[in-house]
Amino acid sequence: MNEIAVLCDDVAEAVAVAIKELVGTSKGDRVVGMGADGTPSKLIDIVAEDAALEILASSGIDMKVVSEEKGIFTYGEKPEFTLVLDPLDGTFNATRNIPFYSISIAIGNNNLSDIRYAKVFNLASGTDFTAALGNGAFCNGKEIHISSVKQVQDFTVATYSYHDGWDVLKRLGRNVRRIRTLGSAALELCYVASGGLDAFVDTRNRLRIMDVAAGLLIVKEAGGKVTDGNGRAPCGELNVTDRVNIVASNGAIHNGLEKTIGL
Amino acid sequence: MNEIAVLCDDVAEAVAVAIKELVGTSKGDRVVGMGADGTPSKLIDIVAEDAALEILASSGIDMKVVSEEKGIFTYGEKPEFTLVLDPLDGTFNATRNIPFYSISIAIGNNNLSDIRYAKVFNLASGTDFTAALGNGAFCNGKEIHISSVKQVQDFTVATYSYHDGWDVLKRLGRNVRRIRTLGSAALELCYVASGGLDAFVDTRNRLRIMDVAAGLLIVKEAGGKVTDGNGRAPCGELNVTDRVNIVASNGAIHNGLEKTIGL
Repeated sequence: MNEIAVLCDDVAEAVAVAIKELVGTSKGDRVVGMGADGTPSKLIDIVAEDAALEILASSGIDMKVVSEEKGIFTYGEKPEFTLVLDPLDGTFNATRNIPFYSISIAIGNNNLSDIRYAKVFNLASGTDFTAALGNGAFCNGKEIHISSVKQVQDFTVATYSYHDGWDVLKRLGRNVRRIRTLGSAALELCYVASGGLDAFVDTRNRLRIMDVAAGLLIVKEAGGKVTDGNGRAPCGELNVTDRVNIVASNGAIHNGLEKTIGL
Repeated sequence: MNEIAVLCDDVAEAVAVAIKELVGTSKGDRVVGMGADGTPSKLIDIVAEDAALEILASSGIDMKVVSEEKGIFTYGEKPEFTLVLDPLDGTFNATRNIPFYSISIAIGNNNLSDIRYAKVFNLASGTDFTAALGNGAFCNGKEIHISSVKQVQDFTVATYSYHDGWDVLKRLGRNVRRIRTLGSAALELCYVASGGLDAFVDTRNRLRIMDVAAGLLIVKEAGGKVTDGNGRAPCGELNVTDRVNIVASNGAIHNGLEKTIGL
């Protein structure tokens, strides 16, 4: 596992360096193609992915890669694991120089339910979230835990339901203390893990596996709970096109939160 | 003006140092009294204000101070200006270690309309926004300008209307590209100035003069427009209790944005 942690560190650092000059620029914001996930790719997304893949390719480790822009492919003959990569989560923030965008890397096998190592790295600030299955979650090397807030009405919840899922936003707005929309789902999940937020709710069926694979393990290893909004654990093949719903919380009253959302 | 800029730098640095150990702690989050603005004061708010006032008191400059916790008072016999201070804007983020909280300092005379120097400093990252009347706005010493986005439907707007002003949020949600809620109004105004956001809308009549006095000058000096949501320039005596409505934008279609909000 140490080899994997070092590999993920190297990838994150390479991406941070590669995109630095493009952050906050119209050049980085230019649409230059269509990603494997079916959404437009901006130059900064491509540069981030290229930097990540260069490190992965030169590692000499056989692996399957699931990545936002290039899709699914393998390095070597005998993949030891599947690496799920979102090279740049929060592209809008990066193109506008709002310091909340990240790289998300998850190591698993076939399914969202079998992730065993996760890293989310804030490319603007260097804040680093990691988790290994069964070994807890960490921020900059220090163990983190979910918040101790016990009542839904005291919750601070990150959500994106202002276009689709309007009813969900309205029910949240009426029933929780604060709403936040920070612009990087991967990082917002990490702030649920660290106790910065009490919950993350995105039930628009818009999140991709790449956006959340790492964050989910980090939340669970920090003591939190994650479902699909209907009481089930999120699962799904590790691919670039499927969409998922995610309700992640400190677990204090997860069923109550799901009822509030009322899917 | 240089003396004022140096004074503001010293205040911001002192506050950053003073609160460092309290960020992300339950100790810092403890309610320890009631501020002059009529809202509960947390320990981290008090420590921030004390650190700021220590610098102001020892500066030897005669001034009137308008501050969140201690209210309105003067240093010396002949105040040269009024200093409007929000020692910690985004207290929630600070207590949860979400790296988006700031100190806001504005130098003026009697009214929100006569601010002549402004500083908003991200206490987590050190990102520094300043403006002097007629001399432009700056981030970390580099001149900043509002975004070039021209259509309301392409706008990214920061807003807080999820409890009160529900109709405003719904109209924004239907008509703009993205909504953000980052947790520090002072900083969000600065990101309108830097082109990070296209607009900031808070029409709940909840913002205090201290929250916005600095940000408004920074937006205007960066080329943006600021109104009360009904086409009028925000104004009001520099005090701790009055509330204001603010619509700040890149100015491209400010009237159109006000119509969308539909006050």
